[in-house]
Amino acid sequence: MGDHGEQVSNKQVILRDYVVAGIPKESDMSVTTGTIRLKVPQGSDAILVKNLYLSCDPYMRSRMKKLEGSYIESFKPGSPITGYGVAKVLDSGHPNFKKGDLIWGKTGWEEYSLITSNDILFKIQHTEVPLSYYTGILGMPGMTAYAGFYEVCSPKKGEYVFISAASGAVGQLVGQFAKLLGCYVVGSAGTKEKVDLLKNKFGFDEAFNYKEEQNLDVTLKRYFPDGIDIYFENVGGNMLDAVLLNMRLHGRIAVCGMISQYSLEQPEGVHNLSCLITKRLRMEGFLVIEYYHLYPKFLDMVLSSIKEGRIVYVEDIAEGLESAPAALVGLFSGHNVGKQVVVVARE
Amino acid sequence: MGDHGEQVSNKQVILRDYVVAGIPKESDMSVTTGTIRLKVPQGSDAILVKNLYLSCDPYMRSRMKKLEGSYIESFKPGSPITGYGVAKVLDSGHPNFKKGDLIWGKTGWEEYSLITSNDILFKIQHTEVPLSYYTGILGMPGMTAYAGFYEVCSPKKGEYVFISAASGAVGQLVGQFAKLLGCYVVGSAGTKEKVDLLKNKFGFDEAFNYKEEQNLDVTLKRYFPDGIDIYFENVGGNMLDAVLLNMRLHGRIAVCGMISQYSLEQPEGVHNLSCLITKRLRMEGFLVIEYYHLYPKFLDMVLSSIKEGRIVYVEDIAEGLESAPAALVGLFSGHNVGKQVVVVARE
Repeated sequence: MGDHGEQVSNKQVILRDYVVAGIPKESDMSVTTGTIRLKVPQGSDAILVKNLYLSCDPYMRSRMKKLEGSYIESFKPGSPITGYGVAKVLDSGHPNFKKGDLIWGKTGWEEYSLITSNDILFKIQHTEVPLSYYTGILGMPGMTAYAGFYEVCSPKKGEYVFISAASGAVGQLVGQFAKLLGCYVVGSAGTKEKVDLLKNKFGFDEAFNYKEEQNLDVTLKRYFPDGIDIYFENVGGNMLDAVLLNMRLHGRIAVCGMISQYSLEQPEGVHNLSCLITKRLRMEGFLVIEYYHLYPKFLDMVLSSIKEGRIVYVEDIAEGLESAPAALVGLFSGHNVGKQVVVVARE
Repeated sequence: MGDHGEQVSNKQVILRDYVVAGIPKESDMSVTTGTIRLKVPQGSDAILVKNLYLSCDPYMRSRMKKLEGSYIESFKPGSPITGYGVAKVLDSGHPNFKKGDLIWGKTGWEEYSLITSNDILFKIQHTEVPLSYYTGILGMPGMTAYAGFYEVCSPKKGEYVFISAASGAVGQLVGQFAKLLGCYVVGSAGTKEKVDLLKNKFGFDEAFNYKEEQNLDVTLKRYFPDGIDIYFENVGGNMLDAVLLNMRLHGRIAVCGMISQYSLEQPEGVHNLSCLITKRLRMEGFLVIEYYHLYPKFLDMVLSSIKEGRIVYVEDIAEGLESAPAALVGLFSGHNVGKQVVVVARE
């Protein structure tokens, strides 16, 4: 290896072009092979990593569109997709990271990445759990669940909690947090398998398949005869409209995502917002990026909960970078069961 | 006058039948004449009042429908409309009220009322301002503006504030509160006359006639090139959708009312709720009934502001109970300029 490092081939997942509307297709991406030098440029504070696990997250749908003035940047057509991942440092110009460190944070959908902006980059200290967990329960989705539930929902013991897209990376954890607090917890998901998971694996009190329900208002009245105190919103649209009708006085709606809406050209209309007044509801959107200062506290709690078996976690693992486009696309039709991860390499 | 009191004729405004959808018409009400004894029944803690001023308020539209499980009760077809008003006590079985007292609170749309439930009933102590003010700036709408702005909006000096239906009883006061705090304040209303009032009388920085605007998103961008911190929501529907696109990071929306929606069979859909996430907005509904404990503090502040000329107030006065149906109906097509009051008697 010379000064400039060994040049190796680098498989990458490229976004072909912006995906304006509709559920993204595998063919919106291509897997190509470029080259990369396994060394950080002289004088740079970048880090050069080998990617191990990549995270498929709903917010990535928005990044496939041309965005202006958003909190996130669009993917660049012709360039690799970027997102959260777990990686191993091969070379570092940054004082906080050294060769051999494991990190999680923003990286590229490729075998090797040169990470030049490290706004969200954490060194992994605890490796007694699967490393892939840092794309989910111990990473961004975990922090999202933690911040959304404890900081936004103002939960109290015994309250009635409803979670949509409940078997996903965030939902499964919110439900378990709520159970630990002594809440009554119901989740919705889109297949029988997911519903079983919610009830039998994650310990939800009840769960239902929203695709089998004729009238979500009636469904919610069945599971919440006394109404909903907390709604953890992951889907938007019709579900939100039905929930509004079933909220209790002073209920809280934490708006984490609206996955049912991301691929629509025109989002569905929500008609029951006057319930905000009559029931004096608070509806609040949040983004995990504002809560990373809580990460150490969160990590302590969740790590010990995992070790003591009080929290469980389900992943849907896709093998190899070639499977990444299908894994990401599957998220938007609900193919994944649990947190969708792509393994690029295991070490 | 005997034991049972003098029996007198009592003109009343009666709701003929529920008004399901559409803007209510004068013919949905009738003015009839009954009789009443001017004495409280023996042993009762009711009070018998002569009504002076009646308040026309947007929430009354909902009470014309058949409501179930709502925070308010429907009007009773065949019975007098009820609402907020100012009245003079003629007889009292209640220890807190005596003959000659002036009160404001819930009363009937009639010349004389027997008030048996006095949950919201305040004795008027300050009569150096017009008594009609206790239907508005010093009564329920005033308290609504105060609670909504100071308790729900979390306002800070210098913030950008937008108020819809801004020349109404609540809006005109919210705008003046915001100006007193050093905010930049823009209001919308539905006529040139109201817009002039907002700018020239209430001291708003800017105001516009929403009926003359083609595209409310563009309009709001013109008045708020840097976005809106606080939206005081009185109208709902399209306006809310346009506002969501123009909110700033961490903006707050206090949902006070949605007058544009009350007469629709199916409320309009709101499409831009995903802005709650991307901009991390809080949207919160509230009802004045939860804030009456703040009334003494509110009254102190607003009374002195009125006396010192820091707050002004505009009423639209309809003369006589016969004019009450038209006055109430006019509210829903925006006929009133300022707070709509009906004078039943002046003393």
